[in-house]
This record gives sequence, structure tokens and C-alpha cells, in this order.
Amino acid sequence: MRDDIPAPRATLSHGPQVLAIPGPSIMPDRVLRAMHRPSPNIYQGELIELTHSLIPDLKRVARTDYNATIYIGNGHASWEACLANTHSRGDLVLIPRTGSFADGWAEVARGLGLRVEMLDFGNRIPMDAAAIGARLREDHAQEIKSVLVVHVDTASSVRSDIAAIRAEIDAAGHPALMQVDCMASLATERYEMDAWGADVTIAGCQKGLMTPAGMCFVFYNDRADRAREGADCVTNYWDWRPRTNPDIYFRYFNGTGPTHHLYGLREALTMLVTEEGMENVWARHATLARAVWAAFEAWEAPGALELNVRDRAARSHAVTAVRLPQRGTDLREWCAGQMGLTLGIGLGMAPHGSPETAGFFRVGHMGHLSGHTMMGTLGGIQAGLGALGIAHGPGGLDAAAKVLAQA
Amino acid sequence: MRDDIPAPRATLSHGPQVLAIPGPSIMPDRVLRAMHRPSPNIYQGELIELTHSLIPDLKRVARTDYNATIYIGNGHASWEACLANTHSRGDLVLIPRTGSFADGWAEVARGLGLRVEMLDFGNRIPMDAAAIGARLREDHAQEIKSVLVVHVDTASSVRSDIAAIRAEIDAAGHPALMQVDCMASLATERYEMDAWGADVTIAGCQKGLMTPAGMCFVFYNDRADRAREGADCVTNYWDWRPRTNPDIYFRYFNGTGPTHHLYGLREALTMLVTEEGMENVWARHATLARAVWAAFEAWEAPGALELNVRDRAARSHAVTAVRLPQRGTDLREWCAGQMGLTLGIGLGMAPHGSPETAGFFRVGHMGHLSGHTMMGTLGGIQAGLGALGIAHGPGGLDAAAKVLAQA
Amino acid sequence: MRDDIPAPRATLSHGPQVLAIPGPSIMPDRVLRAMHRPSPNIYQGELIELTHSLIPDLKRVARTDYNATIYIGNGHASWEACLANTHSRGDLVLIPRTGSFADGWAEVARGLGLRVEMLDFGNRIPMDAAAIGARLREDHAQEIKSVLVVHVDTASSVRSDIAAIRAEIDAAGHPALMQVDCMASLATERYEMDAWGADVTIAGCQKGLMTPAGMCFVFYNDRADRAREGADCVTNYWDWRPRTNPDIYFRYFNGTGPTHHLYGLREALTMLVTEEGMENVWARHATLARAVWAAFEAWEAPGALELNVRDRAARSHAVTAVRLPQRGTDLREWCAGQMGLTLGIGLGMAPHGSPETAGFFRVGHMGHLSGHTMMGTLGGIQAGLGALGIAHGPGGLDAAAKVLAQA
Amino acid sequence: MRDDIPAPRATLSHGPQVLAIPGPSIMPDRVLRAMHRPSPNIYQGELIELTHSLIPDLKRVARTDYNATIYIGNGHASWEACLANTHSRGDLVLIPRTGSFADGWAEVARGLGLRVEMLDFGNRIPMDAAAIGARLREDHAQEIKSVLVVHVDTASSVRSDIAAIRAEIDAAGHPALMQVDCMASLATERYEMDAWGADVTIAGCQKGLMTPAGMCFVFYNDRADRAREGADCVTNYWDWRPRTNPDIYFRYFNGTGPTHHLYGLREALTMLVTEEGMENVWARHATLARAVWAAFEAWEAPGALELNVRDRAARSHAVTAVRLPQRGTDLREWCAGQMGLTLGIGLGMAPHGSPETAGFFRVGHMGHLSGHTMMGTLGGIQAGLGALGIAHGPGGLDAAAKVLAQA
Repeated sequence: MRDDIPAPRATLSHGPQVLAIPGPSIMPDRVLRAMHRPSPNIYQGELIELTHSLIPDLKRVARTDYNATIYIGNGHASWEACLANTHSRGDLVLIPRTGSFADGWAEVARGLGLRVEMLDFGNRIPMDAAAIGARLREDHAQEIKSVLVVHVDTASSVRSDIAAIRAEIDAAGHPALMQVDCMASLATERYEMDAWGADVTIAGCQKGLMTPAGMCFVFYNDRADRAREGADCVTNYWDWRPRTNPDIYFRYFNGTGPTHHLYGLREALTMLVTEEGMENVWARHATLARAVWAAFEAWEAPGALELNVRDRAARSHAVTAVRLPQRGTDLREWCAGQMGLTLGIGLGMAPHGSPETAGFFRVGHMGHLSGHTMMGTLGGIQAGLGALGIAHGPGGLDAAAKVLAQA
Repeated sequence: MRDDIPAPRATLSHGPQVLAIPGPSIMPDRVLRAMHRPSPNIYQGELIELTHSLIPDLKRVARTDYNATIYIGNGHASWEACLANTHSRGDLVLIPRTGSFADGWAEVARGLGLRVEMLDFGNRIPMDAAAIGARLREDHAQEIKSVLVVHVDTASSVRSDIAAIRAEIDAAGHPALMQVDCMASLATERYEMDAWGADVTIAGCQKGLMTPAGMCFVFYNDRADRAREGADCVTNYWDWRPRTNPDIYFRYFNGTGPTHHLYGLREALTMLVTEEGMENVWARHATLARAVWAAFEAWEAPGALELNVRDRAARSHAVTAVRLPQRGTDLREWCAGQMGLTLGIGLGMAPHGSPETAGFFRVGHMGHLSGHTMMGTLGGIQAGLGALGIAHGPGGLDAAAKVLAQA
Repeated sequence: MRDDIPAPRATLSHGPQVLAIPGPSIMPDRVLRAMHRPSPNIYQGELIELTHSLIPDLKRVARTDYNATIYIGNGHASWEACLANTHSRGDLVLIPRTGSFADGWAEVARGLGLRVEMLDFGNRIPMDAAAIGARLREDHAQEIKSVLVVHVDTASSVRSDIAAIRAEIDAAGHPALMQVDCMASLATERYEMDAWGADVTIAGCQKGLMTPAGMCFVFYNDRADRAREGADCVTNYWDWRPRTNPDIYFRYFNGTGPTHHLYGLREALTMLVTEEGMENVWARHATLARAVWAAFEAWEAPGALELNVRDRAARSHAVTAVRLPQRGTDLREWCAGQMGLTLGIGLGMAPHGSPETAGFFRVGHMGHLSGHTMMGTLGGIQAGLGALGIAHGPGGLDAAAKVLAQA
Repeated sequence: MRDDIPAPRATLSHGPQVLAIPGPSIMPDRVLRAMHRPSPNIYQGELIELTHSLIPDLKRVARTDYNATIYIGNGHASWEACLANTHSRGDLVLIPRTGSFADGWAEVARGLGLRVEMLDFGNRIPMDAAAIGARLREDHAQEIKSVLVVHVDTASSVRSDIAAIRAEIDAAGHPALMQVDCMASLATERYEMDAWGADVTIAGCQKGLMTPAGMCFVFYNDRADRAREGADCVTNYWDWRPRTNPDIYFRYFNGTGPTHHLYGLREALTMLVTEEGMENVWARHATLARAVWAAFEAWEAPGALELNVRDRAARSHAVTAVRLPQRGTDLREWCAGQMGLTLGIGLGMAPHGSPETAGFFRVGHMGHLSGHTMMGTLGGIQAGLGALGIAHGPGGLDAAAKVLAQA
């Protein structure tokens, strides 16, 4: 009897394929099941009630008492939607930068005819709120109409302090709107739109909200809506007003709604808001993030393998960017081919390179994932480091398991 | 032994719910099954190849050798997308009108800052190509930059002759683009973008293309793309250039793609283009439409129950608007409650009314439907006419069955 | 502009495929959706509670206060299960016959070592209860241990009067058990196990109970359970006692339960028992059956096309066998190929032929079907009769629609 | 900014629920998707061809050129099926025992009227082939008609050497059939029915074959079929002859087939046989099993936490029983509640106890599972050991990851 069967071409990738990229996240079976249904009537019946029910739950997720709108579109669409509603051609916007998603938003702003001023903080540290405040104080003419802030940059995994930036804007006595991109952070970590003073918040559905890509959300308060008055960039499709408390159903979506996505989102919101509770959702992500950090801090070999963000307080709870010179792509490929585990590519870290950067990778830990999912991902990474002969410190998995044990 | 069980509150609606509205259409099980899958990697792997494969098939559906782009969005989004790529603020567009969807497109055009001139043909007859030609001939300054034509108005079910309009534009020697809305007609009846001379064609995914709502398509030729050069309405999200043959995958969708929809669309296109064949798809819709007309022509009682479009040659193969003064809503409600059959509401037929018009209803016969589906719908309608005591001629079902028998 | 596109190879079968065979019936989307889920724990948790909840609902469907058991198996398994629990080798059973399913049950009885006596009533009329009573009165030695009665023969569509047979058994003072096969009738038409005096009732899950094939049910009362005492045919797998109110979960199914089927059955029972109500389920089937009869009675041409059962009171509400000499197979093939409609094959009507009989076909109208479904099926048949040049009377569809209108 | 959100009632169980019990195993999405489809015609069309295609693939899985039959039923049904086809009441069968599943099979044998002789090897070591041979040599009258061997006992996780037992039977010159229960081993580890000399092999579909519970398989060779001649236990439902190469489709299943399961099984067999290859399937399970052993061997604390089977060569590749006095249930509950990980209950280890034994648990590692799945399960267990303060050695996860790295 043998306990060992030679099979040189065998791989360990046959099993549930696990997506550990920073969005789309793992879709719950329940969400997919809710979407596997015949087309509903779009004029009358349950879809109408279901859509109404989404709005208050979306507000609960973003912690706002103001307005929530749903667009058929992706994250880039929400970048355009919020700017179109609040700006006119030629307006100046200030964009503090902690990673490549600020560049993307800037590109969209320029595409609308806005003038953009970047305030670059690199890729590894959070925004310096005081520096933002200082810039605003210099803006005596109040030319800057909005400060566009990425809460967590999905590429660099840097998180910035939204409330602190608000405080600086207020301290500067500057009227600029603060618009916040919460793509990576909404429903994955604490975000308090009203309490933190955001005027606009945007996000997509395919990360923390666990719904297949294809919808995005714009939350806005009354100040932002006043900016809507004079905004000459706004068009029919982006106009948020008819979408908010519409008189006729089809105005929710300026035309036909994304029927199946709405069923999916309803299920996802029920799971998050009703069943688990947002505080618990955030706590779960926080614990899982600490497990990731604990593993990598044990594995780290400075200059070789290291976490991109050094300061724990500035790290996302939903995505972790890792520096692994020369070997990032190798590791990703090994994990996909041998473990059934897809890690995220490094993105936007090289100054003039392709969007993928071989010396980086990212671990997505957002949405529908458990302690089991997380330990499997870290276990797969450690196996890959070993298989590829990549130097790494001992004890990473033990450290991660310990975090979960103490949760 | 009894063959009859009294149960006054029983209904015959328990069974597969059949949607006979003019979009969303009935989704094939195969399409829904293809969408019931985990999130894919969006940077590498099968999704990339799958997306590439969609483009040539979409072109086969629209009969064009030029360009096809996919947007996350609904039909209204495609209205805005095509105009944004081809126009600048202040441009004049001419919109011949055969139903309320021309009004919708006009509203979008105005929202972009364009000037709109309507040419109204009412709700019951097709566009008069000669009248369009005459208007263009008067436009000596060539102020009109586009003629925006709805091939089939989903509200009135009037179909116009696209090739004839092109011929008139050419005969007038006018450089205006012809942009065609094929929401109701794409993949439901013959449409030949290149042969008929359309510069731009737009459609959504949830009608003939049998995929849950959430994507739209813009097809454009080189002439239209030249208009893109000087268009000042174009923004980052709508710009069709990066979306066409993109250097990097994410530019297909200007950000994250609609992952699950792409799987659904792949399956739908395989069914339509590869398995059934577009000529056969069109033939099926044509036959089913003739069955609908045969039934209604038998049932008709002028002034009471009648088809909105009198001329068979001007009737859509995908939707049929019916005039049923005072009783349209009753009939729809009876069919939904008693037959499991959802008919379409009357739309946009009253001059100043609500979008729903009680004296009308529509039968959708687009997408995934067979002879059985069609006969069930007509049978349900006849039962409803009988149950509600609505006067109607005899022999409608026999006439419809005869059409199918002879197909 | 053309309203007609020639496409000789086109068919009208592209659409939802409709199964009008006498089982498996059309599965509701909700049932399939409920089954599309990960494997559950089979030792603890929700599956256990869910299984408990099925039993009282199954009893409601069969109208019994006694016992319900679930077997993994098909209808044939239930034939064997009920006999194994109530008989010993050499026992004599009396089987009145109204179609080929009585022959099947007889074969199973013989396979268990029982002696079988058939009482043949042909294929077109119900059992003569008096004749059964007469035979029992002759059985002075009370050799006959069970009378095995098929309520509705799925092949012939003949329905017999269960209560009348019970009355004759009682009047004869004979102790034989009455065991009733309700494959075609359970959850499709009125059946009252306790009130009608059945000792055992059996059925499968894939007809009236709208769950994919793979489970069967045995209901038994205390008298039947007393027969279990001395039954030497019973084996571990068939033994109904541990399955009824089991001490440990796995005994419900004598091993691993049919996990996904249980979720499906739960959804189906909720739809039938809780949402629609059994009286209404029966009423719906009764009305739809009358629509079928009305159509065929109009189409009938004696000797050519005719309903197999002449007496309305003896017709099943769930399946209708039709005699169509020489053309049954043609019609079925046309409907499948042209309408997306699958009719049932003729079964067991020829004395010594193959199981399929070309001169017959059957229409299944059981389970999840609405007025729309039924009219589509009848419309498809009429189209087929026309297309194939099969002589038939006029007005069938009008007659059917009238039945539905008056329901 | 905080990196830590207190939420005392939060759990890490929200995510994909992972079933690490020894069957049902994790169902692939593809299998579930294949089952999410309308009912097919059961008389003609694709289901018939699909069913034919299953048989050769099942034989490839069991490595036999003889016969394969499919029953609607669970593992217990296959126990009864194989015995019913090969035995008559009063026959003597010899059952070597390495765990409680031998007891279960014995109970079924007795239920059929067979006489049973057990040969007990306890719960921790494999069968001693020589002892079986010795017993057969004593059986001068050749009363023993079959030796019923459980290849891997799912309760104890002991694996025995089938070829060695065959050699002993042959060496003894004894004509007894060797019937092998491969519930836990089929499609999870090397099993060679013909080469190892098994006359009968049985298994269910819900473990290595990755299909929802509800079907079982009996493979038999010509010798076994000769035993069928005189077997008086065989009944209509169990008779394997009509099911093998049936003249009419419905005889495959002695009645209606398990339609949706067949689609699921087709997909599973395609994944196993065609895409991955059986050698690779076995190699994957072997590697994952070694990872489990490596982890537990590091964690072991003799008398407290230890693997039930000491000899690696006698351990299953699909399930691992673990002894954890007093804390087995605690650990399972913690993993389910905190990690989304369901471990298997201890089964049948206490001499006279309930089926669940609190001092044991089992890890299932069969079917659709990858390196990620396995590391997640082991990581969850280590977190649980830590959280519950259960003494365990260090380095378990590192050891497991090392096995995977070197695979």
C-alpha cells in the first residue's frame, strides 16, 4: 500500500477558486441565487418595492441621512457622476494623491473640462491633512471648488483620515466640497459620511457590497446638491436629482433599471445590514486585516518582501499591497496554478510602467470572506514563498492564526 | 366522483410567469445559468478572451464591419453616449418622431446642450423619408449635425424605413450623421447598419439580446468617428475610442467590466449568432409577429379594440401596441392575476398624460420566445377579453395558429 | 420595407422549452434556485429542522393524519417500499387494472415473491368497484392481502374512484389493505387518504410536487403498520419504521439524505400548501384539465383523433391520453421541433408493442403550469394539426379560452 | 484614525461556508449550475445520450472493464443492492471490521436475512489480510459466500489493503466474492477494481464524485453476475441486470431517472476524468492528506490530541479521524461559529455510545478542494485550538504549507 502517488503534472488548484483580489470580491452564493431569476416587470410589482427598500439600507452603509443614488455603471462612472453634478467646465479641483486611483479620478475630472491640481503624497503614506489645509488657506480666491479624496487607494492600500481633512478644510474656512472615493472602503471598514463631514461619497457594488460589478453609488448632502444648481457639466444621465425620490420608477435609473443586480444587492444588503450588522462587518474586516498584517510582518524581509504601508494606522482593512521585487508575478502565478488562489496584481506603483508591476502584488480581503478564507489565502501564499524559494521569515501563519484565535 | 372542484379564490396564475412586455424580454435559462458563477479575475484569464469574442458577434448582430462598444448602462446611457461622442454644445439635431422614445432622446440631447428640432409624425405611421429630405434641403447652412432616428418606437410599435431615410439624406447632399436607435429592433428584426447607411447604431442588452438589463451598445462607423474629433461633449466615461480595441483590458469598460453580464451576453450571442443564426432569429420574430397581427386583426373592433399601427409594413416585429379604450389596464391586470401573463403598459400615447395610458397596452414578442410562448400569450389575452366582457371578433386564435402552422 | 423574411430552415422552437409530458413536470424556478446551494451539514443545523418541517406538509398534501416517509428513489421504488413493508413471500395481491402502470406494479410484486391476480378493466374506463367487491366476497379464505389500486393511470389517463372501492372492500367485510398509487394524482387533484380509507398511499416528487425526480413518498396508516409486523419482505432500506419519527436524523433516509432535493421539496411545499393552498391547487388543475378537454372535444374526429377516456368523470386532471392513429409521433415531433413544446409519448396502449405507441400521445398538465402555459400547449397542438394536415374540428382554442375565461 | 474596531459579538464566520466533513463534500459551482435547468424529456433527446456517456466514465473512475449501474439511493441503498443481487436468505457473509461502517453493512445484510460473521480489527489499524485468509481456510464447507470489505472506513479513517485481501482469498482457494465498499475512497484515492480483484464495488455520488447526495453506484464483474443467477434476495428495484445496457431507457433506473443528478454527475465526471485525470485527482488528494497529517503530527500531544490512525500507510486520503478527548465538540462548534468551517463529528468510536462522540472529530478532505481550501481548514483548526486553550505542538501550519510547497 502506498501513501504517495506520483503525478508530476498534478496541481492543487482543483477546488473552489478563491479570488483574493481587491475587487470584484467573492460573491455570496445567496447573492448569485437571488439574481438567478426571470426578468421582472419593470413597471409594477415587487421590483418597485424592492428598489425603494435599497435606499435606506445604502444610507445605513454609508452612514448618512442625506441622499443615495444608484447608477448603472462602474467606479469610473461614479467618478464622473459626482463631478458632473457639482462642477462647471473650468472649475479647479484639488486632488491629494496616495496612489494611482487619484490619477484616474484626475483624468475623469480633466475629461469633464475641469482644472486639476494634484497634491502628491506618494504611494506609501496617508494624506497630510495639514498640507491640504495649508493649500486651501493659500486659495484666497476660493478657486478650488472641490477636494477629491480617495479614502483608501486600492492600488497602494493606503488609507487616509477623512475626518482630519474635513477639520482642516473647516479650519481654513474654505467652501470647497469634500468628495470622497470609498471604492475600497465602503462596507469594509468604518466610514461615517455625515459625522466625518463628507459632502459626497462614491463607491461601486462589487467590493464591500458583494454584488457583481455593474452598479455604482453616489451619496450626496444638501451642500453638494446646492452645487448642482449651477453645475454646467451635468447631463441627463448623470443628473442625480430625478434619481432621488423619483416621481416615476424609471427615473431611479434614468431608464430601465439593472433588474437582476437589484435583486442581488437586496440580498447583499440584507446580509450586511440586517443579519451581520455594519459594526460587525467592519470588525470582521479589521480582524482579518490584522491577520494579514501579522503574517506579512513575520514574513517580511526588508527590501525583499515587505508591506507597502509601514504604518498600521494607515493601512486599508480591505486590501494589502505588498512589495516583492522581481517575484510578484511569479508568486501570483504559482498561487493561481497550484492553490486555486488568485492574488491581485501590483498596480500603478512604477512611475512610468504598465499598470501591472511585477515587483508588487496585492491581497484582497474584502467582502464575503471568513476566517477560513483568510487562512487559506495566507497558507497558499506561504506555500508559494516556499515553493519559489523566496526568502521569508518564519511564523507567519502562526501569527495570523493567533490573531483569529484572539478575535 | 367529481370533475369539478369549486374554489372561488383560485387563480390560474401559478406557473412560469411569462413576461410579454417590450423589454426586458424573457431571459433564457442558459443565460442566467452562465451568470451564476463566481467572480472572475478581471486582469487575466478567460474573461479577457471572452470579452474579445463578444465584439465580432455584436457586429454580426448589427451587420456592421465598423466598431462596436459596450457600455455599462441602459438604453438612456447609449442615447447619451452616441451624442457625446459626435456633438458639441449648441449643435442642432433633427429628430423625426413616431412615438415617445423620440421625446426621450430629445431630452437627452437637450441635457447635453444640443439644440433639438422635432419632426413629428404622430404615433401611428412611420417617418416620411421625403419630409426628412425636404427639411435637410432647406438647411443650407448645414446646421443640422445629426438626424436621430428611432427604428422602432417601443411605445407606439411603429417601424420606419432606415434605408429610405439614408437615401433622402444622400439625395439632399447633406452631411448630417444618421444615428439610429435600435432598442426594440436589434436582434429581433432585420437591421443592416452598413448596408442601410447608418453612421451610429445604439441598443440595450435586455431585449433582443436576451441578457439582464445593465449594458448598452454603441456601433459607429468611420464617419461618426471623425465627428468624435471635434466633439466637445465627450467625457472620459462616454469616450468610445479607448473602448474600441483597447490597449489594456480595463479600457473596454473604462474601469471594471460588468463581469457577470459578459458571461450572460456570451451565452446569448452564442444562441443567436452561432446556433440559431440571425436570419432565422429574424424569421422567427417575423412569424410570431404575424401570428400576433392575425389574432388581433380577427379580434379588432374599430374604435374599441384595434392595433395601433394599421399598415403591416410599418409594424414592429418585436412589440405590438394595442388601443383598448378604458380597458387596457383591466386586461393587463386580469392576465397577470389569472394567467401568469404580464403584458406591457400603454406608454406615451396620451398627449399630456402620465406615462401609463389606461386605454392602451402592448404585447412584447421579442427575444427568447417560441411558438408555444406566443400562443399562450394570445390565448391568455383572448381568455381575458372573454372574462372581462370586452367585445372582440371571433377566430383570433385559429388565425394565429394558422400562421404558425404555415411557417 | 418587408414584413416577411424568408428563412426556410427557421423554427419557432427557440424559447423556453415547455414540457407537457406527464412527469417530470415543469420545475418552478424557485425550486431550482432553492437547490442551487452548497452542501449543508448533514448532522446538525438547518437541514435537520427543514426535514422535520416537510413531514406535516406532506401529510397535508395527502390528507392524512397518519405517517409520511420519504425515500430516495423513484416511483418504482415506492411500489417496492410499500409492498415490502406489508407482505411476505407468497402473499396474494389483487390488482385492478386500467392501464400499464398496474402491470408495472404487478411486476414489482412478483419480484418480491408475491402472487398477483389482475382484474383488467382495459385502458379507457375506470375500475368497477362492484367487481372488486365481488372478487373479495369470493375470497373466503382471505388470501388476498392487499388490493393495489392505481388512482390515475399515467399511461391511459383513466381515474378511478378510490372511495367507492373502499366502500366495496368494507361491504365485503374483507381485511385486505387498500394501497393506492397516486403518482399522477398527488397534488394535482383531490385525494383524501384518510377520508377515502386508503391504508397506504404512494407517490413520487417529480409530478404534482414539482421537485426534480429522485424522491418518493409512502404514507401509511396504523392498519398498514400492523401488517409491517409480520412482513418478511421488509429489508433494512425499505423499512418504514425507523424512517418515521426517527431517533437520529440519518434514519429518516436510512443513511445520507438527499440534501438538495430536500431544499427543493421545501420550496415546492411552501408554494403548494402555504401560498396557493391545496384546494386551489386542485381547482387550478381541474380548470386546466377542462380546458384541455374542451379543446380536444372540439377537435375530435371519432376514429381519427379522440380522447382516450370518454367519460369526463373518469379523466385525470393531470394527464390526458389522446388517440391519433398513425400520427401521434408525427405530431409530437412537429411540436418539439417547431414550437418548443414536448408532448408525452403514448405508453402501453398496444397489447404487445413497444412501450411507445405511435398512434397515441399524451398531454401532461400537472404541476407548475398556468393558464398561459396551457393555452400555449393547446395552441401548439392546433398549429401542429394544421401543419401536418391532420383532420380536426374547429373551435378548439376558443373553447379552451372560454373555460379559462369562466374559471 | 483607529486600526481596531471593538465589536464583541462579531464573528469571522461570514463568508463562503466550508464543509470539511467526510461527505457530502464541497459541490463545485459547475455541478450545481449544470443541475439548475428545466426538466428534460425522459423518453428522447439529450438526456438519453448523456446517460449513456456516464457509464464508461464511471468505469474509468472505478478502474473496471465490467459493469457499472446507477441507483437512485444513498450509500445504504448500495449496500443492499449489491447483497440482494448476490445472495439468498441464510447465506453467510464475512465482514472484517475497521470502524462503524462495517457494522452498518452488517445490519443491512441481516435485514436481508443473511447470516453475518464479523472479524473485528478495532478502529485504528487496517484489516489483517492473513487473518481473513486464515478464516477462509477454516471454512471447509465454503459456507462464506462473500467477504464484505470497507476500503476506507469513513468513521475511523482506516484504510485497508484490498489487493492483499484478494491475494489471501485466492491463496485460500476460497470461492467467496469480495465486495468492496468504496464510499470514502472512490475518486479520492487509488482504487483498481479489476487489478485488485474486487468482484463488486459500491459507492455514493456525494463524496469523491462531487454530486449532491441521491445516487449510488454498483460495479460488478462476471463472477458476481453469476451469483446473481441463484440469488433469491434480488427484487425488481435492486436487480442490476436490466439496469446494465438496458433495452429501454427507463430500465437504467427501473423507472424515472434522477434527471437533474444526471446532469450534475456528467459535469463532475467531466471535471474528474477528462479535465483533471484520475491519476491527478488521486495525487491531489494524496498531497492534501499529507498536509493534514503533517499539521496534526506537529500538533499532536499523545493522549490529548492525536490522529486516530498511527500508520501513515493505513490512513485514508479523504478523511482523517482525530482523537481530542473532551474537546472534540467544542472545537467543531468554535470552527463553525467563528471560522465558517464545519468539521465532521466523531462517529462510532465509543463502544456503546451515541453515534456522535464528543472526544473525536473528523476532517473531511475529499472531492472539490484545493490547496487554499486545505490550508484554510487547517488554519481554522489551529485558531480554534488556540482560542480554546487546547494544548498542541507548534509548527503545524508551517509543516502543512511545506507539503504543499513541495508537491
